[in-house]
Amino acid sequence: MALIVQKYGGTSVGSIERIQNVANKVAKWRADGHQLVVVVSAMSGVTNNLVDMAHKLQKEPSPREMDVLLATGEQTTIALLCMALENIGIPARSYTGSQVRILTDSAFTKARIVSIDDNHIRSDLAAGRVVVVAGFQGVDEDGNITTLGRGGSDTTGVALAAALKADECQIYTDVDGVYTTDPRVVPEARRLDRITFEEMLEMASLGSKVLQIRSVEFAGKYNVPLRVLSSFEEGPGTLIVSEETNTMMEKPVISGIAFTRDESKLSIRGVPDVPGVAFRVFGPISDANIEVDVIVQNVADNKANDITFTVQRKETDKAARILEQVMKDLGAKMVEVDNKVAKVSLVGVGMRSHAGIASKMFGALAAESINIQLITTSEIKISVVIEEKYLELAVRALHTAFGLKDPA
Amino acid sequence: MALIVQKYGGTSVGSIERIQNVANKVAKWRADGHQLVVVVSAMSGVTNNLVDMAHKLQKEPSPREMDVLLATGEQTTIALLCMALENIGIPARSYTGSQVRILTDSAFTKARIVSIDDNHIRSDLAAGRVVVVAGFQGVDEDGNITTLGRGGSDTTGVALAAALKADECQIYTDVDGVYTTDPRVVPEARRLDRITFEEMLEMASLGSKVLQIRSVEFAGKYNVPLRVLSSFEEGPGTLIVSEETNTMMEKPVISGIAFTRDESKLSIRGVPDVPGVAFRVFGPISDANIEVDVIVQNVADNKANDITFTVQRKETDKAARILEQVMKDLGAKMVEVDNKVAKVSLVGVGMRSHAGIASKMFGALAAESINIQLITTSEIKISVVIEEKYLELAVRALHTAFGLKDPA
Repeated sequence: MALIVQKYGGTSVGSIERIQNVANKVAKWRADGHQLVVVVSAMSGVTNNLVDMAHKLQKEPSPREMDVLLATGEQTTIALLCMALENIGIPARSYTGSQVRILTDSAFTKARIVSIDDNHIRSDLAAGRVVVVAGFQGVDEDGNITTLGRGGSDTTGVALAAALKADECQIYTDVDGVYTTDPRVVPEARRLDRITFEEMLEMASLGSKVLQIRSVEFAGKYNVPLRVLSSFEEGPGTLIVSEETNTMMEKPVISGIAFTRDESKLSIRGVPDVPGVAFRVFGPISDANIEVDVIVQNVADNKANDITFTVQRKETDKAARILEQVMKDLGAKMVEVDNKVAKVSLVGVGMRSHAGIASKMFGALAAESINIQLITTSEIKISVVIEEKYLELAVRALHTAFGLKDPA
Repeated sequence: MALIVQKYGGTSVGSIERIQNVANKVAKWRADGHQLVVVVSAMSGVTNNLVDMAHKLQKEPSPREMDVLLATGEQTTIALLCMALENIGIPARSYTGSQVRILTDSAFTKARIVSIDDNHIRSDLAAGRVVVVAGFQGVDEDGNITTLGRGGSDTTGVALAAALKADECQIYTDVDGVYTTDPRVVPEARRLDRITFEEMLEMASLGSKVLQIRSVEFAGKYNVPLRVLSSFEEGPGTLIVSEETNTMMEKPVISGIAFTRDESKLSIRGVPDVPGVAFRVFGPISDANIEVDVIVQNVADNKANDITFTVQRKETDKAARILEQVMKDLGAKMVEVDNKVAKVSLVGVGMRSHAGIASKMFGALAAESINIQLITTSEIKISVVIEEKYLELAVRALHTAFGLKDPA
């Protein structure tokens, strides 16, 4: 008998029929002798409707009241799922974040979990009940309702699994696992049986939007085995574990290929090579709430530097205007903008101990005559920025070169 | 400066525009220097949608989960109203029933209020905020969400007004007050400026469905001045007060005429005149969850009684079947059913001290050749059951006979 925390997202509970489907899934796990804690999101579409109403009433809706409003979405789902469970003879009890007492700080709309009281849940489990908990929400010290921000239901699931020392946290979604790359780009892309937290973090932040980064970090920190699987199809999904507990004999060198479209590349050339220059470039960019992705700095000639970075394409004009001003202030030479770039990244903990991954990657791209504009590396990833039109070709070439279609 | 509790029903907050309208009304009262606590219902239609979903998932939905589900309706409205208030510069803060701590018993879907903690509300009022409270809901000792049943938001308003010793509890609805009778039947019906709790109870239970009986009882018990007024039109509405605090010099003898359509009359004749007979008749009726309205018992001949009562028309067949069985069991003579009756009632605390009200009433009906089938009386009301087709004629005749169109 295992204690399993399951989390079902908005699509998985998006209609009466789908809620019944979730109840049946839960019933099956319970029939196998497991204890179940089920975390649910708001039914798909509900949260957006609530946000729309809020914006019609207040230009920048009060964060405290926004949380009171949004928390109703998950509260609706927990009650409905309990009814569906009881209807098929499974005793169940629902809890809001506040009722569990998922204590958070008071940062409305983006609160962080401080602690979880597991008393109610443990006694319900002991009494043979399935416990259904509203994802995404908590309560602060003063009794105010808080929400955890985007992807907060995943975080609730992982945090509950950590607090309860659950054997596994299962995240049900509309894909059946984590793939070596996007199957829409590479039809031979393969579902991974296992991946490490670190790899998943790099995959997630690079565009494989299966899990929220924050919940993966959380799971890694508390070493909660995390499984991604489909609400709609049977299958083992992908298990995300720490490197130490990954017991496979041979670990693959590369786990997957992530990519990001719709980036723009901006360069400021001939920046004087004096301390504080990078801050004077990125300070104003950050003040304008523009998120910067890749940053590369090269030494150019005459003690002057070239600084290049990428941003989301929709931020191009705003970033360029700021950079023109920075150029004047710093006495730099010129600003260059290229709004047709994309980023491709190889991810894998195995590359730490294998030399030659980078050169193999560059070789595979060269064989397709794809020009590499920028290169950055971390311990478990290598990213290149290329002209966007070559993106699919590059991903396919790398998928083949690293043999990702066959299990390691 | 007065402390005023206002309650807005589902129609009054039924859309974004109407919520803005409520915010403007609240702002106006606040600008006049008053402290405001505002109780709101779920937006109209929302509760019915939730109930429909529940019934699709479970034949008899779990009462505990039903309350978790329904409580989301009012929670949505409190957040939206606070946003609308803050948008026009009024500081506001929302509270669910649980957050106020409206402590109730654990009778899910029909809980009763045990106590109200006024700490949060008082400190918000002292800080100059408008306090917005979710109607209809509370929390039990164990932290379970409860709801107060039909009309529960009125009860929340009155209970808060009592706990806070508010100067007035204003119930905003889609009518502009309590009328001498239904204006659709008597166009000259007049809005009453004042009415006593006792009269209002008789009016409400007899079909003038402006306020829930329970909230009127509550207001009477704690002597909370209750005002019914329109969300959509300006006007003073109707103030409901205790007889002692009704300071008008001349009180009207009759305040209004209430009536109920769609009743059926059932008689069981020749019931042996022995103790316990009434119980043997009404026990099975009550066990079948049939609500009985008027009950009249006459002594007939030969130590046998006739018992007559009225029920809602839709219960006629069920009640008749039960009565046939009772007749056999008791050795009574016969059962008679008339499913085309209606009830008309004169209500007024003044009739206590005025003789001749009943005979004036019977005279007015006789003048229109309306036959009276049953008569029952209480201290402040006289009811007659008549053939349904004469209902409108009877109400108009009585309205004229008692001069109700002119202020007393």
